[in-house]
Amino acid sequence: MIRTHDAGSLRATDAGATVTLAGWVARRRDHGGVIFVDLRDGSGVVQVVFREDMDAAHALRNEYCVKVVGEVAARPAGNENPELPTGAIEVIVSELEVLSEAAPLPIPVDDDVNAGDDIRLRYRYLDLRRSGPATAIRLRSKASQIARTVLHERDFLEIETPTLTRSTPEGARDFLVPVRLQPGSWYALPQSPQLFKQLLMVGGMERYYQIARCYRDEDFRADRQPEFTQLDIEMSFVTQEDVIDLGEALVKALWKELAGHEIAGPIPHITYLDAMARYGSDKPDLRYGVELTELTEYLTGTEFRVFAGAIAAGGYVGAVVMPGGASQTRKELDGWQDWAKARGARGLAYVVLDAETGEPRGPVAKNLSEAHLAGLADAVGAKPGDAIFFAAATEKREAQELLGAARVEIAKRANLIDESAWAFCWVVDAPMFEKTDEGGWTAVHHPFTSPNAEWIDNFESAPDRALAYAYDIVCNGNEIGGGSVRIHRGDVQSRVFDLLGISTEEAQDKFGFLLEAFKYGPPPHAGIAFGWDRVCMLLAGADSIREVIAFPKTRGGFDPLTSAPTPITAQQRKEAGVDFKPAPATAGTAGVAAPVESK
Amino acid sequence: MIRTHDAGSLRATDAGATVTLAGWVARRRDHGGVIFVDLRDGSGVVQVVFREDMDAAHALRNEYCVKVVGEVAARPAGNENPELPTGAIEVIVSELEVLSEAAPLPIPVDDDVNAGDDIRLRYRYLDLRRSGPATAIRLRSKASQIARTVLHERDFLEIETPTLTRSTPEGARDFLVPVRLQPGSWYALPQSPQLFKQLLMVGGMERYYQIARCYRDEDFRADRQPEFTQLDIEMSFVTQEDVIDLGEALVKALWKELAGHEIAGPIPHITYLDAMARYGSDKPDLRYGVELTELTEYLTGTEFRVFAGAIAAGGYVGAVVMPGGASQTRKELDGWQDWAKARGARGLAYVVLDAETGEPRGPVAKNLSEAHLAGLADAVGAKPGDAIFFAAATEKREAQELLGAARVEIAKRANLIDESAWAFCWVVDAPMFEKTDEGGWTAVHHPFTSPNAEWIDNFESAPDRALAYAYDIVCNGNEIGGGSVRIHRGDVQSRVFDLLGISTEEAQDKFGFLLEAFKYGPPPHAGIAFGWDRVCMLLAGADSIREVIAFPKTRGGFDPLTSAPTPITAQQRKEAGVDFKPAPATAGTAGVAAPVESK
Repeated sequence: MIRTHDAGSLRATDAGATVTLAGWVARRRDHGGVIFVDLRDGSGVVQVVFREDMDAAHALRNEYCVKVVGEVAARPAGNENPELPTGAIEVIVSELEVLSEAAPLPIPVDDDVNAGDDIRLRYRYLDLRRSGPATAIRLRSKASQIARTVLHERDFLEIETPTLTRSTPEGARDFLVPVRLQPGSWYALPQSPQLFKQLLMVGGMERYYQIARCYRDEDFRADRQPEFTQLDIEMSFVTQEDVIDLGEALVKALWKELAGHEIAGPIPHITYLDAMARYGSDKPDLRYGVELTELTEYLTGTEFRVFAGAIAAGGYVGAVVMPGGASQTRKELDGWQDWAKARGARGLAYVVLDAETGEPRGPVAKNLSEAHLAGLADAVGAKPGDAIFFAAATEKREAQELLGAARVEIAKRANLIDESAWAFCWVVDAPMFEKTDEGGWTAVHHPFTSPNAEWIDNFESAPDRALAYAYDIVCNGNEIGGGSVRIHRGDVQSRVFDLLGISTEEAQDKFGFLLEAFKYGPPPHAGIAFGWDRVCMLLAGADSIREVIAFPKTRGGFDPLTSAPTPITAQQRKEAGVDFKPAPATAGTAGVAAPVESK
Repeated sequence: MIRTHDAGSLRATDAGATVTLAGWVARRRDHGGVIFVDLRDGSGVVQVVFREDMDAAHALRNEYCVKVVGEVAARPAGNENPELPTGAIEVIVSELEVLSEAAPLPIPVDDDVNAGDDIRLRYRYLDLRRSGPATAIRLRSKASQIARTVLHERDFLEIETPTLTRSTPEGARDFLVPVRLQPGSWYALPQSPQLFKQLLMVGGMERYYQIARCYRDEDFRADRQPEFTQLDIEMSFVTQEDVIDLGEALVKALWKELAGHEIAGPIPHITYLDAMARYGSDKPDLRYGVELTELTEYLTGTEFRVFAGAIAAGGYVGAVVMPGGASQTRKELDGWQDWAKARGARGLAYVVLDAETGEPRGPVAKNLSEAHLAGLADAVGAKPGDAIFFAAATEKREAQELLGAARVEIAKRANLIDESAWAFCWVVDAPMFEKTDEGGWTAVHHPFTSPNAEWIDNFESAPDRALAYAYDIVCNGNEIGGGSVRIHRGDVQSRVFDLLGISTEEAQDKFGFLLEAFKYGPPPHAGIAFGWDRVCMLLAGADSIREVIAFPKTRGGFDPLTSAPTPITAQQRKEAGVDFKPAPATAGTAGVAAPVESK
């Protein structure tokens, strides 16, 4: 090491010691010939002092990389800086070596400056010298270490699975890779290691994990990255409870060590149906109340066309209360209509309760009978001064989701969120199937997800109500992980395929080699995957997963630093065999399984 | 868990306990109605016994996955199996549940069976149930854990770098990925994280590591995989010695814990030139002696045309001794000629020393003067009964490499290798440059490798002799890791580019954004990368890296399990934008750096 000490480690007890430090000039101040420099390295900052005779120090500029030799001295009385861990001392420099100079900076290395994302990412190496971004990257390293410790203590094996794999024409789009040595053939980058981790279970590996790079060629919404990381886990000879226990151990260790938050007792479970009914979401934010109320029965007989129509069609009417919402201005209430329309709804019916009298008012109030109005506040648990928002639809989920989104928005607008709180839950008992537009059934999770004990022998009798051993873990309204018990019995798998209308031939073509593997004594197995970028984002208190990725891409998958992606040369194109024209021939052999688990 | 105990964990002290086990039927033996089954799970094997009344046990076949409940009992006296950790007991089964059946096996799950690679990999999930393959995968998991422990103890950060990156038209071929959202643009899969780890150093991360997936589109020789893993490390404010110390700590921890081998003292250093002179290799196998002897001076004046020509051209003549090689038959000696020709040499001149008299014989002997013959045995350190092989060439390295290869072959044929030995060395002081065919200079490592202290100010004066701070670590003749100190001074980098004939424009185009980063106070930094597949292969005592990869590919990059790669559909091709025709336009902006470090 060309330094003897870390700058940030020096304390009053080091006074008198001669030290060699190396780092960056974080700030320079001239005081009548004496130059003070904040020297920054990975450990922190220390003040170094150049006396009048150190001429070379005049050349120093921000972000020069320097090595100094000097003596640690207590700062003169009154000059201590209690804000700084090294604030009791300074280093009186006797030797200075400029290791490298810095050109004028395109973005300042300063925690207080807010630069735009594009310029931050273009100069990410300068951005990372700021304490915020550096801390986020350090935290992520610690998070991975903590997770590994929990897993190794439980005898998990870290196993690397392939990333040049077989394309699955099903599901989300694959990124593709032309294969020069087999022109006309392509690899796909994996959307998750799902397939391989199940094969590892068939292979008797019993407990697998991997912090795995995954790829999905999606249209980039807000926070998506074309490559992302998941903590991927699979276990044999376990039940859902075992996976949940493990997931809980991971989350508890992470939040305790990195967020200083002790999760007390077991994380509560809520069924999928309950989550939808009470919060209008399969990832409810439990930092606040504001639950939905179903009013389908209460409003039976109403003449209000919107509600009556939904009820007549066997649908759903429900409401959610905004505490104090009656005090909103007309403009604010109109704003809710725009908000609802932006979500694709026709609007958001509401009633406000007069703050003094509790009298219901507003456009919907006029359409409801006196009896319905009289009992409304009690029915939804509203008080005078509150607003009540309604949703009605033939499809229950559609109305619940609108109310669920309104609930989140209410919490924001009414300041109901304790930003320092952490609220976790497991959402369990997810449905197995949902209706397709064509009237058939499709798997909600993937076709290898096991029905639960109650439904395994009779899911055909009511596919819309059949429940799976599938579970998600939710933190503050973010789904941070999810998984399922897999089907390991051939007879159950066949029945699921039958219900999904997947013929034997089609199953063979799509999932051939996984089904082949399942012929040879597959163990009962189950797993979970955590969205590692999101977990780290929450732990870091960041508002975007980009903050916990060393070199993230911007929208559209562009890297402002390297300018990737780029055109390729004609030579590269030719060599890669991109334009190879295959002889019209030979269909595929065994197919690939498409199950994908990632959050 | 659906089991209460691991099968392999049961001991005599468990006798009397009721246990639930789950695993696979490894073997079934019927003895007069009583059925004995070896039940295998991840922890090992235990004998379970089905009494006459357990009819269901008759249906059991190899590799059925079962759950049994039973009582642990001491085996009847005389029936203990001391070979087996559980051999003192057996489990008398009272309940049997078949969790899943197994079809007739395409390959037996038996440690003693040697199946071909293709069928093993096609049914890798059955292959992995065998103890050898399973042990190799478990060892790899442990190796990664040990390395991480060493690195975290030293404050390294694990940082994930991008794998969808910018193509580098230089160097080895990139795998390419078309970008649907930017048709006509492509990502490249990284050949190593070299570029990003250097940027992380510029970003002040100081100590980085990653067990990183890397990709190289090469023609598949023997043991190559299109994707491979390296333990990738970079450090700031360090010298070569610091990196070597760290590398040594890693290797010592790995070999101690996984191979039971304590590496005594520091691993020896040998310079590149010494390694070539003494062993004819830059990755010498030091498990045996058999050093090369240079004879250029000794043979000066010889009239033997082959030697005289090399000497006259300023070249090299050398020899290597095969102990006991004089006893080889004529056919064996001829075999050496074929061996040499297969390596592209014209042949391998030799002299054998009569076992009794020490008299030199053989075709070359006739061509050497009496004086040269008389002193030959002493000159090369040969004894009566030995054979002496010669090589001569204008290019010293060419002859040394032939002798070095002969040395390895001698060790095999003369049984000189102690297969239980471990011999490590660091090969240091690698040359900076080598001559191109056009008479210019090219970088041996990459153009960012730093000259050493002796040469940094004057490498231009003798580029052929200038040495780099570049180092490789070698184990038993395998290069398992390597790295270098990087140039962090702009003036040195410019001089290296000048010598390499890289213009400012070209440098900008190729390495633009790395050079841009280096404008802003880059710290001195250095790194190393270990070929993780090879390290694990050696630790596992395997003869191919495929044995330590969960799902390896065969030659040509084919995966016998999933049949990847495959053709893609027209729809996929269209969506991926593969055939997008760009407007003839706009050249690239900042270029990409090509340095790649991987072993």
